[in-house]
Amino acid sequence: MEQRFSYHHLWEFTKEVFIRMGCSLEHAKLASEVLLAADLRGIDSHGIARLSGYVRLWEAKRINAQPNIRIVHETPSTAVIDGDAGLGLVVAPYAMEVAIQKASAVGTGWVSVKNSNHFGIAGYHAMKALEHDMIGMAMTNASPLVAPTFAKERMLGTNPIAVAIPAKEQPPFVADFATTTAANGKLEILQRKNQEAPSGWIQDKDGNPSTNPHELKDGGALLPLGGDREHGSHKGYCLGAIVDIFSAVLSGANYGPWAPPFVSFLPLAPDPVGEGLGHFFGAMRVDAFRPADEFKTHMDTWINRFRNATPVAGKQVLIPGDPEREMYHQRLQDGIPVLAPVVKDMKDVATKFNLNF
Amino acid sequence: MEQRFSYHHLWEFTKEVFIRMGCSLEHAKLASEVLLAADLRGIDSHGIARLSGYVRLWEAKRINAQPNIRIVHETPSTAVIDGDAGLGLVVAPYAMEVAIQKASAVGTGWVSVKNSNHFGIAGYHAMKALEHDMIGMAMTNASPLVAPTFAKERMLGTNPIAVAIPAKEQPPFVADFATTTAANGKLEILQRKNQEAPSGWIQDKDGNPSTNPHELKDGGALLPLGGDREHGSHKGYCLGAIVDIFSAVLSGANYGPWAPPFVSFLPLAPDPVGEGLGHFFGAMRVDAFRPADEFKTHMDTWINRFRNATPVAGKQVLIPGDPEREMYHQRLQDGIPVLAPVVKDMKDVATKFNLNF
Repeated sequence: MEQRFSYHHLWEFTKEVFIRMGCSLEHAKLASEVLLAADLRGIDSHGIARLSGYVRLWEAKRINAQPNIRIVHETPSTAVIDGDAGLGLVVAPYAMEVAIQKASAVGTGWVSVKNSNHFGIAGYHAMKALEHDMIGMAMTNASPLVAPTFAKERMLGTNPIAVAIPAKEQPPFVADFATTTAANGKLEILQRKNQEAPSGWIQDKDGNPSTNPHELKDGGALLPLGGDREHGSHKGYCLGAIVDIFSAVLSGANYGPWAPPFVSFLPLAPDPVGEGLGHFFGAMRVDAFRPADEFKTHMDTWINRFRNATPVAGKQVLIPGDPEREMYHQRLQDGIPVLAPVVKDMKDVATKFNLNF
Repeated sequence: MEQRFSYHHLWEFTKEVFIRMGCSLEHAKLASEVLLAADLRGIDSHGIARLSGYVRLWEAKRINAQPNIRIVHETPSTAVIDGDAGLGLVVAPYAMEVAIQKASAVGTGWVSVKNSNHFGIAGYHAMKALEHDMIGMAMTNASPLVAPTFAKERMLGTNPIAVAIPAKEQPPFVADFATTTAANGKLEILQRKNQEAPSGWIQDKDGNPSTNPHELKDGGALLPLGGDREHGSHKGYCLGAIVDIFSAVLSGANYGPWAPPFVSFLPLAPDPVGEGLGHFFGAMRVDAFRPADEFKTHMDTWINRFRNATPVAGKQVLIPGDPEREMYHQRLQDGIPVLAPVVKDMKDVATKFNLNF
């Protein structure tokens, strides 16, 4: 069902694919690193499995392999960036770097991005702030799959939020989560295995709760974090909406149901309200608030205290980022498992570009 | 069971109580406005019902009625404020004003606050940014009542997040929500009525799911938004943790299980890790990203599109802030209903201070 490949092997192949698409060597290397960060951290839906999707978007001329990424508006602590339809995998690192530079200068930096594409995992970008003793934030809007509370219609993406916070002796706190009950990737796994979804993950086309993971193909929708009104789905809807507005209304990208689909076979909205997909990044220097060493020492205390909270029998309290970090070390050493259909996709891509895989 | 009072009547009484506690006239007026903003917006647990609690905290010398609220550290876009153990109801407006001033100067302003107390509803503070064509944010940590995913122990408060976003013709987008499945106030209502709580709101002292609303008095805990792991409670835990860290670790307040209790009969932690309670505020000038008129016109489009999303039969899709705004207009006109036990509490407060109620 799956084969294991070394990180290096996948990275080399991915880099070559991006080069054949017309990316510069620098962009191809960077895009490969960002894409595979998902596989290393165990978020398989956002990594190498999407490579063929990027290729198809490029073939459909929805991705510009040689973008002129630029700041179109700025203040000392903010910027809006036009991604020029580039790979989100290279637009996002550029934008995060601008946020970090602004934070270096005035304490914090906040960057909203338009005219971009899917940027891989949000956590990768947020974590870039850590090496500068900054708190990093990253979010993005995405193809509409999620129905707001009381709606039948798909209006929002899974719109993830990532926040990375440095510590001293402890590994950093890294939260990275979709603002839905379950990420789309988890649903895809259930679809593949023909298993039922838990209640609160999806609804059918009429807005009734459903446990059928294939419901989305039939007009159903993912549900905001909370699942239903009684369990706080209006809060998940708020979170998804905030991500959408910060990423796309602030920047001038397409928002809500106008967000462009990741799959190239779905048409773009005929009446766009902006350009491409939107992202939002933030960086806050911790020493803009208190001495960095003091802050990081208290983060160690915070992390230690929470990790040692009295657990439910048989369980252990985790710190956000723990499972992904463990996965990272394991996969860097043992290789990355790739499912058979993804291997086939990659072979097709290799054939298309006259590459070996 | 309840009596109605005009906003003005409650405001006058509340103001007099704060004056008798030793607040300046200016602070007493402001604190009354902030406190009653909760009642006007229908968040009854955070308004006049808490007045006697503030008095008891003052009697226990945990609230300083004449605080010297001051900036202890700042950069062009950030500040840390020491609330000097003042009422959160006056410390928070001061801090939000600093955030707004910083945003006026450099695009955004971010303020973390230590040594404060309960600040009323987060939404009030976030909304202060709206009149400046800014996006406002407010969050606070609070007494530990919430168990992280897989924990038996209460480690976090209900740690609310508020985000207010201006529009043009449309009323603003105002999200204001606890990062738990249900706010503590909703549980108090069930306790009073001896009704069962929905699943996913609480757990018992051993970490088992429970529907008994009295569980918290017996060592149980509120659950993070999501309810359990399968429904994304780790995401609610992340959100509560981020609020805690931004509010208290950045500022130097008490965090996690060290956060001071609102009720004066519970002791403070013997080993504090900071000073008082913490808050976090943000203000972003929308024209630090794109022209304000353009942004607000697109917010109108966003709001219209979401309000008109195809609804589930018999329902209507709401914009965050809709229900509270409707309640606000209704209660300003028809008066604020106050439950009998709260009326009794207020009469006791009146007697204590030689006031009429």
